[in-house]
Amino acid sequence: MDLAVIGAGPAGLTSGMYAGRFGLKAVVFDEKIAGGTVNLTPVVENYPGFESISGMELMEKMKKQAEKYCEIHEMGKIGKIKIDGGISIGTSKDDYKTKALVFASGTEKRKLNVKGEKGFLGRGVSYCATCDGPFFRNKKTVVVGGGNAAVIEALHLKNLGSDVSLIHRRNELRADKILQNQVFEKNINIIWDSVVEEIFGDKTVKGVRIKNVKNSSIKNIDVDSVFVSIGEKPNSGLAKSIGVKTDEKGYIVVDKNQRTNLQKIYAAGDVTGGLRQIVTACAEGAVAANSAYEDLL
Amino acid sequence: MDLAVIGAGPAGLTSGMYAGRFGLKAVVFDEKIAGGTVNLTPVVENYPGFESISGMELMEKMKKQAEKYCEIHEMGKIGKIKIDGGISIGTSKDDYKTKALVFASGTEKRKLNVKGEKGFLGRGVSYCATCDGPFFRNKKTVVVGGGNAAVIEALHLKNLGSDVSLIHRRNELRADKILQNQVFEKNINIIWDSVVEEIFGDKTVKGVRIKNVKNSSIKNIDVDSVFVSIGEKPNSGLAKSIGVKTDEKGYIVVDKNQRTNLQKIYAAGDVTGGLRQIVTACAEGAVAANSAYEDLL
Repeated sequence: MDLAVIGAGPAGLTSGMYAGRFGLKAVVFDEKIAGGTVNLTPVVENYPGFESISGMELMEKMKKQAEKYCEIHEMGKIGKIKIDGGISIGTSKDDYKTKALVFASGTEKRKLNVKGEKGFLGRGVSYCATCDGPFFRNKKTVVVGGGNAAVIEALHLKNLGSDVSLIHRRNELRADKILQNQVFEKNINIIWDSVVEEIFGDKTVKGVRIKNVKNSSIKNIDVDSVFVSIGEKPNSGLAKSIGVKTDEKGYIVVDKNQRTNLQKIYAAGDVTGGLRQIVTACAEGAVAANSAYEDLL
Repeated sequence: MDLAVIGAGPAGLTSGMYAGRFGLKAVVFDEKIAGGTVNLTPVVENYPGFESISGMELMEKMKKQAEKYCEIHEMGKIGKIKIDGGISIGTSKDDYKTKALVFASGTEKRKLNVKGEKGFLGRGVSYCATCDGPFFRNKKTVVVGGGNAAVIEALHLKNLGSDVSLIHRRNELRADKILQNQVFEKNINIIWDSVVEEIFGDKTVKGVRIKNVKNSSIKNIDVDSVFVSIGEKPNSGLAKSIGVKTDEKGYIVVDKNQRTNLQKIYAAGDVTGGLRQIVTACAEGAVAANSAYEDLL
């Protein structure tokens, strides 16, 4: 094949579609079903062209469209990759040779791993304020975390008119000073030295149970939503294993044409960091396919 | 207002939508109707999420969606921009003050200006092989031009299985040697020293009338499609007038966060060069809005 794509989220599916349209023989692999983390998003309102659509429905459309131009192999975990003249990839089902490779392997959000977190996903629990913030205008919400991302999420929700508190397990924020100052200026309430023990509710989130880690006291607070922002882990292990360069956080380093440090190996979507939106992932997937096409000419 | 956006194509509309969702007050201006050059594309098959949709229909969806989050002023030409502490912009209707500005002003394709070019647009005449190439697999097609873009278009169409000729007004190509070599290797026919005088057909293109500029002989050749690739002009004059940096071709120079050389001034979409696809324009619009939001925090 000409191009193998690892990951069938927005970036991977768009890479496959563009590659096929360029006349390349492309295969997109995913260890789960196609769609990536978008499948977990109940409602998408910020992908241009769809005022409101479920994440799964949007990804089904992208998959159906991509299938016209490339193969999609779901439930096929990539075991290893070998570079020896060409590129060999071994999946749990079969081995393949490819001339070029796109990593579109996404990220995993770090989870709180508490009761209610999974059950209320999309019904009050979210990992992305840029995506889901507008659903909670003028609602009571908590952001869990203390780094830049958490503070930006909290400020964003505050600007949208939410009544925001920040829950942080330490007694100071890790976020940049300039961001911290804004938290104080905007009077965002901070619940220090505390961890979330449970998220509860009925059909949607109604509150969180938090524990003070210093004195072990427990209290419940009423909220409509919980934004968890305690970090994410790029799925870049396989890429690293063959020498693809990543930054200090593990995101794959790419140039503006989505080329990595290795010839004919590209990366696109969340695994490369950046704004991490569906539309940016798609665009990066298109650019990666175009670069592969140019490099294979 | 917080953010003014010049141009209501995919980049501008997405900027407006994202800005609004970030809580910014944003206005998107366009001297024509919203949609940009996509409005001229009869069928779009490579925007992720839509297997096949008319350009105008897609842009109507994006406009309707953006209107939920920002104002859109159509038919309002921006006359001048002044930077004096804030940013003042004067339209044909009114004057505005804004804190930040996105140029999403697009490009104009250079036209042949011959009979039939306009009438057959989308019915055999195209300015983008990446977009429209797959409609003409196994068809007879000509590409007009001799630069890198024209040669890449011709190779692309050849790879898709089209029977391609290149029509060039000189007796040598301007394209890079490596690309020229491929044209010769792939046996792409070149019609030298010739210009298109007319594009003819019935419902769709059936042929072109070409003139040899050396001996003035005229001949008709039968083709199903004509890809015009004689350059494009970025609409960056207004940006240049206030000191925004452009490259040697006139594209606005941006960093990976779509920031220009001027504070709180951004650019997105075709006017910044790059792959120039609907999805890349949208993504750049989202990133520009995010940068503006961060800079206004």
